[in-house]
Amino acid sequence: MNVRVGIVGVTGYTAAELVRLLDRHPSANLTAATSRGDAGKPIHAVHPSTAGRSDVMIETFDPDKMKASCEVVMCCLPHGASAETVRQLIDVGLRVVDFSADFRLSSVEVYQKWYDVQHPWPERIGVTAYGMPEFFADDIRSADVVANPGCYPTSAILPLVPLIKAGLVDPSDVIVDSKSGVSGAGRSPKLATLYCETNESIAAYAVGSHRHQPEIKDLVHRISGKDIEVTFTPHLTPMDRGILSTIYLRPTGGSIDDGMQAWKQQYDSSPFVHVVDHLPATKHVSGTNHVQMTLRQAGDRWIAVCAIDNLTKGASGAAIQNMNVMFGLNETDGLL
Amino acid sequence: MNVRVGIVGVTGYTAAELVRLLDRHPSANLTAATSRGDAGKPIHAVHPSTAGRSDVMIETFDPDKMKASCEVVMCCLPHGASAETVRQLIDVGLRVVDFSADFRLSSVEVYQKWYDVQHPWPERIGVTAYGMPEFFADDIRSADVVANPGCYPTSAILPLVPLIKAGLVDPSDVIVDSKSGVSGAGRSPKLATLYCETNESIAAYAVGSHRHQPEIKDLVHRISGKDIEVTFTPHLTPMDRGILSTIYLRPTGGSIDDGMQAWKQQYDSSPFVHVVDHLPATKHVSGTNHVQMTLRQAGDRWIAVCAIDNLTKGASGAAIQNMNVMFGLNETDGLL
Amino acid sequence: MNVRVGIVGVTGYTAAELVRLLDRHPSANLTAATSRGDAGKPIHAVHPSTAGRSDVMIETFDPDKMKASCEVVMCCLPHGASAETVRQLIDVGLRVVDFSADFRLSSVEVYQKWYDVQHPWPERIGVTAYGMPEFFADDIRSADVVANPGCYPTSAILPLVPLIKAGLVDPSDVIVDSKSGVSGAGRSPKLATLYCETNESIAAYAVGSHRHQPEIKDLVHRISGKDIEVTFTPHLTPMDRGILSTIYLRPTGGSIDDGMQAWKQQYDSSPFVHVVDHLPATKHVSGTNHVQMTLRQAGDRWIAVCAIDNLTKGASGAAIQNMNVMFGLNETDGLL
Amino acid sequence: MNVRVGIVGVTGYTAAELVRLLDRHPSANLTAATSRGDAGKPIHAVHPSTAGRSDVMIETFDPDKMKASCEVVMCCLPHGASAETVRQLIDVGLRVVDFSADFRLSSVEVYQKWYDVQHPWPERIGVTAYGMPEFFADDIRSADVVANPGCYPTSAILPLVPLIKAGLVDPSDVIVDSKSGVSGAGRSPKLATLYCETNESIAAYAVGSHRHQPEIKDLVHRISGKDIEVTFTPHLTPMDRGILSTIYLRPTGGSIDDGMQAWKQQYDSSPFVHVVDHLPATKHVSGTNHVQMTLRQAGDRWIAVCAIDNLTKGASGAAIQNMNVMFGLNETDGLL
Repeated sequence: MNVRVGIVGVTGYTAAELVRLLDRHPSANLTAATSRGDAGKPIHAVHPSTAGRSDVMIETFDPDKMKASCEVVMCCLPHGASAETVRQLIDVGLRVVDFSADFRLSSVEVYQKWYDVQHPWPERIGVTAYGMPEFFADDIRSADVVANPGCYPTSAILPLVPLIKAGLVDPSDVIVDSKSGVSGAGRSPKLATLYCETNESIAAYAVGSHRHQPEIKDLVHRISGKDIEVTFTPHLTPMDRGILSTIYLRPTGGSIDDGMQAWKQQYDSSPFVHVVDHLPATKHVSGTNHVQMTLRQAGDRWIAVCAIDNLTKGASGAAIQNMNVMFGLNETDGLL
Repeated sequence: MNVRVGIVGVTGYTAAELVRLLDRHPSANLTAATSRGDAGKPIHAVHPSTAGRSDVMIETFDPDKMKASCEVVMCCLPHGASAETVRQLIDVGLRVVDFSADFRLSSVEVYQKWYDVQHPWPERIGVTAYGMPEFFADDIRSADVVANPGCYPTSAILPLVPLIKAGLVDPSDVIVDSKSGVSGAGRSPKLATLYCETNESIAAYAVGSHRHQPEIKDLVHRISGKDIEVTFTPHLTPMDRGILSTIYLRPTGGSIDDGMQAWKQQYDSSPFVHVVDHLPATKHVSGTNHVQMTLRQAGDRWIAVCAIDNLTKGASGAAIQNMNVMFGLNETDGLL
Repeated sequence: MNVRVGIVGVTGYTAAELVRLLDRHPSANLTAATSRGDAGKPIHAVHPSTAGRSDVMIETFDPDKMKASCEVVMCCLPHGASAETVRQLIDVGLRVVDFSADFRLSSVEVYQKWYDVQHPWPERIGVTAYGMPEFFADDIRSADVVANPGCYPTSAILPLVPLIKAGLVDPSDVIVDSKSGVSGAGRSPKLATLYCETNESIAAYAVGSHRHQPEIKDLVHRISGKDIEVTFTPHLTPMDRGILSTIYLRPTGGSIDDGMQAWKQQYDSSPFVHVVDHLPATKHVSGTNHVQMTLRQAGDRWIAVCAIDNLTKGASGAAIQNMNVMFGLNETDGLL
Repeated sequence: MNVRVGIVGVTGYTAAELVRLLDRHPSANLTAATSRGDAGKPIHAVHPSTAGRSDVMIETFDPDKMKASCEVVMCCLPHGASAETVRQLIDVGLRVVDFSADFRLSSVEVYQKWYDVQHPWPERIGVTAYGMPEFFADDIRSADVVANPGCYPTSAILPLVPLIKAGLVDPSDVIVDSKSGVSGAGRSPKLATLYCETNESIAAYAVGSHRHQPEIKDLVHRISGKDIEVTFTPHLTPMDRGILSTIYLRPTGGSIDDGMQAWKQQYDSSPFVHVVDHLPATKHVSGTNHVQMTLRQAGDRWIAVCAIDNLTKGASGAAIQNMNVMFGLNETDGLL
């Protein structure tokens, strides 16, 4: 079987990463790509790394044409705009992995408060599969739409859930201090992401107001059944890729070994989540779909440290993993 | 007046920064430099940036020769080794700014537990001036030895003290998540600080065990009279310089504005500590002795963010500032 | 004496560097700043590093108001736009250091061919002082307008001139392969200078068509009287600052030592140009107005290597040096 | 078929890259690894990115044990040491891809002059297959030992050969100005490759004396039959990976289009060499085995620009490509 894949919104970094991963996927390939601004150009005009390697032409978006050339569409549009496009793709019978936040949360109210837009398709909120096969493989298998997780939430939910679920840490006292590479900020030219603004510098941003905070809270609740209070602070770090989340927790009485065991039990059969003894660096997982996490004692607190690649497991790798599950391929195809 | 300055241990990054700062100091200049490994070479052989600009030759250490050419010595030796050298310099009548941790703490026991060496001069523990003129200017003015602060502690003590002293935050619930540039790890060749190990990567290290944790706890207590519980996590960040500390606090009932006011009152007359409204980036203070800090609400927590340059305010700039105070110069000479 | 300095076009990186250098200048200070887009804001709103350190407000451009508050204006506008503004400043009796290319070249035709605009003030072409005090100090001393040199030309002209003038190299066979930090590309948001486009990457650009090629050719001719053929290739390098030029030459029979001697004679009394034995790295001169150059044999070619900081000696440091000469200050004031 | 691969000298960056590439190779896998210093450790102890993904243990070198577990050995030892090890591996019947320079050159004299050691196996000089399948596929197919090319030579030989062979450029006037990422300098801790020495800096090194100069000269001659004079200057660039070579040539009368056509004819069937219209950046080929090259006019010179990843096509990717050819696999297996 060979899955034909389309990308809607092909100019950004997550799309570039999809192209890279599909290039080496044994049973899927890129057959269509759209972009409002770059239609009519070959794909290597926007991603020069594909020169000599892909002859896909960028087109304007047309759901029927996509239906003719694809089984599944990776929708890389911003929130708000995405939901409407996803609906059109579903209507023509395509399956979709949606990179936006439009279908991630359980509550229309929470979505509208944090994203400050009217949701265009509220019936799908709370019933759409969340694209984390470590917890939702069955939902994903049969889904027409999969909500691809946010990058920061991936680095927080994976370590948090087993500890919260097992009652090993106090759910009311959780801090996630995250450091992300600059690619997470997108490819639109902005002063804040110019080389000379971010190089040789680290800064916190969106303190107390980042939209991934409610996503972490919602998904931990959805998976573990426990309500958590979480303080989340993202930082812009001078590197292309990677997220490191340093998570401060209050243990309820168990040992670090209990925590490590809870993780190992949960992720024993997961091909990508690795419980390690060393302190993970983002470089250890760079360009891969792997996750490394460890747990340490610091006085009367626990500190969980989790490293992912924000473009791979934090976005496009997860999307390929979801696609593999949706189409009954090996979960690791194109990702090892 | 022109203060003649010697540097003991001239090969590292803090020494290079001292050379840079002294080069533009209006009333002090470098007159001697020593190094065990590089004696006999001109200083530009170890710091090529000084080519054509300094004719100081590196010598082996001899306190009497230093006495003949200097009024003050910057001692850039590692802990343990430093105390003995400082004693010899004092004995010949020199004044010293000591970059090591040997005289920073109040307790011999705490020192010996964390640094795992017998202290060579315990009488001086707890009675040596801590080189933070924002709090100890009088002590520094008359000191023969000044203990130059650690880089991480500077970025934590300055924001913490006014809030703790004013009772605005719970002293038992303090987390300092710090991100440092690689120069903080020194100039000795080590695998961990090779370009290709640290570039494009961020990682936590020394989780729960870094020696700057007791320094933060000790100094906050010494200045504010309050005992704090502090969790401290340092991170190695892919940049040469800079420390950003993100500090998680529990407010006791006051407003963010109360916190900002406590800072402004404390640092009103300080030429280097700036309370700002924006979220500071390390780049904003790079290469300077300035400190930028701000305070934000995030749910029921406060988040203080403080940026310094680890080599300047976190080491050699503070040392120059201390020297200025010791010799009655303008506190900002060579630093603006 | 205290020179009052204005900056026209204050939002870019060269202006930020001017602010940094003026902050420590003993006999000059910033008294006015203008910007079309940011008028009405304090200067720290566009350059957060100045927070707490400058109370200059950004205004719209008005030559009479500048005249009231300044003796000299640093004009940081793009070519074409700059000449007209410079004329207005001269008309009200101000002296100007112009950062654009508008007055650098000797020929209106060459200017119009390479810059593709009608020159707004052609009478001044060829008679304006070129701001390289190493060669034009007398012109600069009495100038109303000084054309501040291009960054790449500075790194090429300084090593080339003494060798060409002495007849030590073939003027018809000169290659300048230059590598620049990203700040040279300016602070306007563009895809090409986003962090994730330039980080971890090096590329040539404007091959065979960069406007600094005729500037190198023109100035070498103006100073040495010799016509040269020069191939110039700039490269965008993943670093904030610095230019390294690797220059390939054909010796005419002399030795490397002859070349080094020609340099030393020329720059003996120059406070900033250093002939060194080691291979200079851009880091050796980072943040300084210094120039390091060396000469090596490679088969039957000579290779000159020259390092400068593109924002300091390549732009704002040279401008301060020019201002110092214009106003009879020490040439090194604010620059050591 | 599944090729079992061993690595001798597994601690460096080229070995890490081999591990990464073998991890996704469909018909080869890593079965043995040796290292003098790290024997007895699991491979993830030296390459933490492999945590949870490989259970290979590092052993001391033993040719018989390697013979039992491998068909082919990647020998990642330094020159001089390598030849003797390769001989032992051949003696037990293994095939070898040798990463050192020991078998690359045609002349024992040239080798001994540039590498300053007695060659331990001179009979093999000049008769060993040079591992560039674009020119030597037949030799490689049947070889017991393949000399894996140097990183810089790969970036120079591929663009030079077709132009030299076609007589389109003057063979006596060739300059190769190359810029390499820091991984090319190896993983042994050295001052020169510390983060804070190389970050934010570019410098030339080994000017006129780099050992890849005779390799370029030798191979261009071996392939094209023409003797060239080449000036080669390498530069250390602040990035992990990548080589960009800017090559200055004198055309003999043809057009740029003639040059591009000569390239396209040569590399028409090559899966990795891409003749492109844009100016290639190293990022376009980062982490891949691809080569991008273009040709431009600059006055009366031609400038060829070629980008490769120094660890992939410049080392370990080429080694996998060679292995694929040696064992009759698809040339692109594991590399797309």
